Amino acid sequence: MSVMGLPEAEVLASARSVSAAESHDDMLSIFARGAWSCITEPGDGAAGGLVAALGAVAALSAVAERWSSARVRDRCESEGLSDIADAVAAAWAAGASRWYGRLDSSAVLSSFALAARSHVRLASPGAEDWPERLGDLGVHAPIALWVRCGPSTAGSAFPRSIALVGARAATGYGEHVTLESASGLVDRGFAIVSGAAYGIDGMAHRSALAANGRTMAFLAGGLDRPYPSGHSALIDRIAATGAVYSEVPCGAAPTKWRFLQRNRLIAASTRATVVLEAGRRSGSLNTAGHASALGRALGAVPGPVTSAASAGCHRLFREYDAICVTTAAEMAELAEPASSGEHGAMTLAVDETARSILAVLRRNVGLSIVEVAERTGVGTAAAQSSLAVLELEGSTRETATGWRLA
Amino acid sequence: MSVMGLPEAEVLASARSVSAAESHDDMLSIFARGAWSCITEPGDGAAGGLVAALGAVAALSAVAERWSSARVRDRCESEGLSDIADAVAAAWAAGASRWYGRLDSSAVLSSFALAARSHVRLASPGAEDWPERLGDLGVHAPIALWVRCGPSTAGSAFPRSIALVGARAATGYGEHVTLESASGLVDRGFAIVSGAAYGIDGMAHRSALAANGRTMAFLAGGLDRPYPSGHSALIDRIAATGAVYSEVPCGAAPTKWRFLQRNRLIAASTRATVVLEAGRRSGSLNTAGHASALGRALGAVPGPVTSAASAGCHRLFREYDAICVTTAAEMAELAEPASSGEHGAMTLAVDETARSILAVLRRNVGLSIVEVAERTGVGTAAAQSSLAVLELEGSTRETATGWRLA
Repeated sequence: MSVMGLPEAEVLASARSVSAAESHDDMLSIFARGAWSCITEPGDGAAGGLVAALGAVAALSAVAERWSSARVRDRCESEGLSDIADAVAAAWAAGASRWYGRLDSSAVLSSFALAARSHVRLASPGAEDWPERLGDLGVHAPIALWVRCGPSTAGSAFPRSIALVGARAATGYGEHVTLESASGLVDRGFAIVSGAAYGIDGMAHRSALAANGRTMAFLAGGLDRPYPSGHSALIDRIAATGAVYSEVPCGAAPTKWRFLQRNRLIAASTRATVVLEAGRRSGSLNTAGHASALGRALGAVPGPVTSAASAGCHRLFREYDAICVTTAAEMAELAEPASSGEHGAMTLAVDETARSILAVLRRNVGLSIVEVAERTGVGTAAAQSSLAVLELEGSTRETATGWRLA
Repeated sequence: MSVMGLPEAEVLASARSVSAAESHDDMLSIFARGAWSCITEPGDGAAGGLVAALGAVAALSAVAERWSSARVRDRCESEGLSDIADAVAAAWAAGASRWYGRLDSSAVLSSFALAARSHVRLASPGAEDWPERLGDLGVHAPIALWVRCGPSTAGSAFPRSIALVGARAATGYGEHVTLESASGLVDRGFAIVSGAAYGIDGMAHRSALAANGRTMAFLAGGLDRPYPSGHSALIDRIAATGAVYSEVPCGAAPTKWRFLQRNRLIAASTRATVVLEAGRRSGSLNTAGHASALGRALGAVPGPVTSAASAGCHRLFREYDAICVTTAAEMAELAEPASSGEHGAMTLAVDETARSILAVLRRNVGLSIVEVAERTGVGTAAAQSSLAVLELEGSTRETATGWRLA
């Protein structure tokens, strides 16, 4: 079967050159998904909806053969998708004109060739290298991901991953905290996901590698031309032990739109996103916005209010209800709340004195401060202040007849 | 009428020496409230309930004459307080033994004498120097406040006041931020309330005075012996233009309990409390606890996660939902939310481009990115990224037929 007017042999050869797919249908699908990554911009919901409904191959034929909206609708009907037929046809009407202009089979072939030369493979949804959580993006999920990774697949690392992102213009403070955080998270079994940019991103990857941890990067441009070029060696090291992903094909340049959409992949693929340092308008705030829009845990690291490099983090506290995280342990808790019993608890000054007071009040109801002091063996002043703190915490209360557990 | 077995003349003379009260009853009440401040510890809810029910004078007689619970109950009945009679009698039963031990008329007289000598006056609830919001403390509100202030009364300053508190062990960073905050708040018409301690408190008062603002201090000990003594000159300056308050009589030493209860007055008397710098166990966290228990706005200033002096502030974000405040403007907004339109809004990158896009979408429904770009006159990439950001903010959404306002 010919795809985009190309001889089937060429299509299958291209698919084989970037994947281990063996069945004829899988190879056609791999090629079609790669082609879709060439003719669309990242996050094209119309394309995502069409591919989800018709399948990548049929959807590509629809473009190549310039189907009418009516035919797209009929196809949906015949596939038993009557309920979404109108929506898909409407998506088609909205998107087709965008795709026609980029329908260039030789361009598609050359990006497959570039990929093969650069040892870049193509991953489809469900493949072992596919970050499962991307499914939460719905029709905005990538149709395909181009990936560079070592012998061990990276897919398995995403379920326990956390995104550490931040400004290119990082300060010594931000880099120090990033190093501490990344290595502490690796020690706790987390993989570190970031964008391979200068500043915080680069430090996050480097620190993970230095701690012998897994780290994955999402790039905004083609994997054959690592961006930023100053990080090409770092990106090679990330690919060697973790993985480097891009939604756009080899040969594609990073654009502002592609950076913004790349950010959504960082936020969507991980359990939690932490912004370590960011100016008021840093791009990492966009990643944070994606994380909170997706209902992912969002954390930010505070810094001096006198530092412009932390202004964006403080904004996230004020405008996005970001959680304040100050240590790797708190970041781990952000990603896996279950891992801590202290989360959200009012634990102010629950020290030994308070503990023994609580024990006494568990056995006796309505004690005076003097009685509490006697039974706990602490001074009256100490008993008074602990009771006051415990009352603030809602653990105890003073009634007309004395102190008791709340 | 004799009070605590003292000749009435002596009682009235004492009252006159610390107040401008003129009527016989007012003077008796002033004396009785002063006496209550001598025989109770701050925040004694049983005493507060008794005084509220019987009045300060009768309540004091009850102690002096060692009434029985039954008589206290009967008195409530005869005052038409049947509904609370049992509670008051129970409070009496719980508290009386505490008060008997401190019932010493000569000690009371000498604290009035000390007060008169130190130009300390006594304020009762409702007096012009009385911080109105203390009423929110209910039975835990002070029965009386000892106050030192200049010619102009301080009471009028509390309605627009904010508490700036923090650790004694402040850093240069904390002191710098405190100075900026206090003077910025004074410029916005706020009075600054704090505890006159070393570190953040002292800097808050000093900065307010330097900006020719009003500032009030609450002390944990008697006003005749300013604590800390190293701040006695500062405390004199605060009293000269603002006011210095204490719940305990002259001659009384500050104790841990009195510091904790003093903190509740700082939190209760103001609109909002801001912690500028605090270690993990700083006493200012107790003030913050009072503020949040009272439903007052609570703010904290972030700092480097590498600074132990900011660890308490970060704890307030995590455990008390404290609002992150980084400037005097944000602190003013905390105290008076109405004063700002930006509060809580998702304003990330709503720049000129975004504004014009919103304007276009208000007039047109379902535009492609290219159409948006044409009608706003911005580049396609710029239109795409602004639309993406606006979508994150929930202002716009992409439908099958194009972009529209959400």
